Amino acid sequence: MQRQSFELLILGSSSAAPTTKRNPSAQLLNVAERFFLMDCGEATQIQLRKYKTKFQKIDHIFISHLHGDHFLGLPGFLASMHLLGRKQELNVYAPKELKDVIDMLNNVSETRMNYQIKWHFTKNDKLNLLFEDEKVAVHSFPMKHRIFCTGFLVKEKPLLRKIDKYELEKHKLSVADINKLRKGEDVINADGKKVKNKDVTIDPEPPRSFAYCSDTIYDEELVKYVNGVDLLYHESTFLNDNAKRAGETFHSTAEQASKIAKLAKVKQLLIGHFSARYGDLEPFIKEAVPYFKNVVLAIEGKKLKI
Amino acid sequence: MQRQSFELLILGSSSAAPTTKRNPSAQLLNVAERFFLMDCGEATQIQLRKYKTKFQKIDHIFISHLHGDHFLGLPGFLASMHLLGRKQELNVYAPKELKDVIDMLNNVSETRMNYQIKWHFTKNDKLNLLFEDEKVAVHSFPMKHRIFCTGFLVKEKPLLRKIDKYELEKHKLSVADINKLRKGEDVINADGKKVKNKDVTIDPEPPRSFAYCSDTIYDEELVKYVNGVDLLYHESTFLNDNAKRAGETFHSTAEQASKIAKLAKVKQLLIGHFSARYGDLEPFIKEAVPYFKNVVLAIEGKKLKI
Repeated sequence: MQRQSFELLILGSSSAAPTTKRNPSAQLLNVAERFFLMDCGEATQIQLRKYKTKFQKIDHIFISHLHGDHFLGLPGFLASMHLLGRKQELNVYAPKELKDVIDMLNNVSETRMNYQIKWHFTKNDKLNLLFEDEKVAVHSFPMKHRIFCTGFLVKEKPLLRKIDKYELEKHKLSVADINKLRKGEDVINADGKKVKNKDVTIDPEPPRSFAYCSDTIYDEELVKYVNGVDLLYHESTFLNDNAKRAGETFHSTAEQASKIAKLAKVKQLLIGHFSARYGDLEPFIKEAVPYFKNVVLAIEGKKLKI
Repeated sequence: MQRQSFELLILGSSSAAPTTKRNPSAQLLNVAERFFLMDCGEATQIQLRKYKTKFQKIDHIFISHLHGDHFLGLPGFLASMHLLGRKQELNVYAPKELKDVIDMLNNVSETRMNYQIKWHFTKNDKLNLLFEDEKVAVHSFPMKHRIFCTGFLVKEKPLLRKIDKYELEKHKLSVADINKLRKGEDVINADGKKVKNKDVTIDPEPPRSFAYCSDTIYDEELVKYVNGVDLLYHESTFLNDNAKRAGETFHSTAEQASKIAKLAKVKQLLIGHFSARYGDLEPFIKEAVPYFKNVVLAIEGKKLKI
């Protein structure tokens, strides 16, 4: 059986000012066909169309903070969802002032949406659960930026145990029994015989995880939140040539991002949010690799399987 | 001598929901190196970069109304101008609520711009002068849409008379004399002889004009405002197959746009603001031509010399 999807699509990799090649921040995560949009910079809806996503399937939008390059695509995206017939509720997880902005925009345009937005206001005090179902949980965690800002941690729920089909054939088991076995229980079969879980099941793959750190100064406090994730997205606005500026603007360099990845023992590091001053991005990889080898660049249209 | 520029660049031609090929409304007009941005839909700043415009030269932005597809690119564009070092004042001509929106966005992002925005609030009662210098004047005029909306009329000032260089050599004239002649006056030359204007000058080309009608129901009241312009941009959201919907949503069809062009005796008609439901745009031309022959489609990147 194919494993459930856990895939990230890069929609925008630029910092505040977009370039001809790079759009403002946005990433689309598909976890078991739940579609999570991480930030929504200007023109995100155009990017979603360009990469042929089914954007009405997005039911959860996470906004890290209220600098324009992380949310100015949201009003237009919400309007297009409305115009193209959306009826189902949309969840938006964001700083509370974003609701005021959207309300004001609907007010000046005299627009009444055909669907409800369910607002979930983020806090940046600690790890906070934002969303949970049987497949996945999403938490926010505090980040240090110029204004209120949170990161997001997306984790699969532990998968059900796998049934060893060869062993299974030896026992008379109902569907209900099999479901119990997958949850880790022992069962009594049709012949009244005890079937031990460990004899007929095998360990599932460990749950996967993704952390999204949009805009942050170098901050080792992040390590405890993103510890051991399969994929860490950590902003890298600058190279070391602008380390001072990075500190002043509460951003990070490629070296700093890779140091966090190393400290947190993540499996892979994705860097992005590149300043418009850099045309060629290879120097970002070169600067990161001495600290953390498994590093990739956020490039518009790139898909990463986690 | 080359005539001063009067050129339009199409940045976006879609109605509310953008498509993979069409962006929301925006057009850049260059009149004698004054750069006027007409509306600023989402991703306008990206389009301005794509078509290699010098966007810091834009000192005047005109917003017709506050439906998102006509202004949601403005906040990001203002922020990028700031980030990329703008210092000079920017004039924005728009419904007054737009200032509240921009103020709120700067407030939530804790941004203070390095340049001033000079706001000019539009009225939709009659023809109102918005901007004037020695080369050009811009007026707004009322349009009928679902919400407060204005069109814009851009007119060259009458050009100075042309000096007939062959005749000029026969007279002893100072630079001051020549300037007077260009303004239509007679002069007395160095020998005390009267030089009649009509003997040494010829008529200049007539001043050119452009009218921008972003979103409007079919409205013959427009004719008096756009009468005789060299280029009329008139929205054409729908074809006749959706004439009923056009009326209900206060939009126009291609046939209706061409009827206005005919009634107003304009020289050329430009249609745009196409609904996402139409892939092929040739039917728009076919529908317009029986009423008005000189019609062209707004296509992203198209330049029109007026």
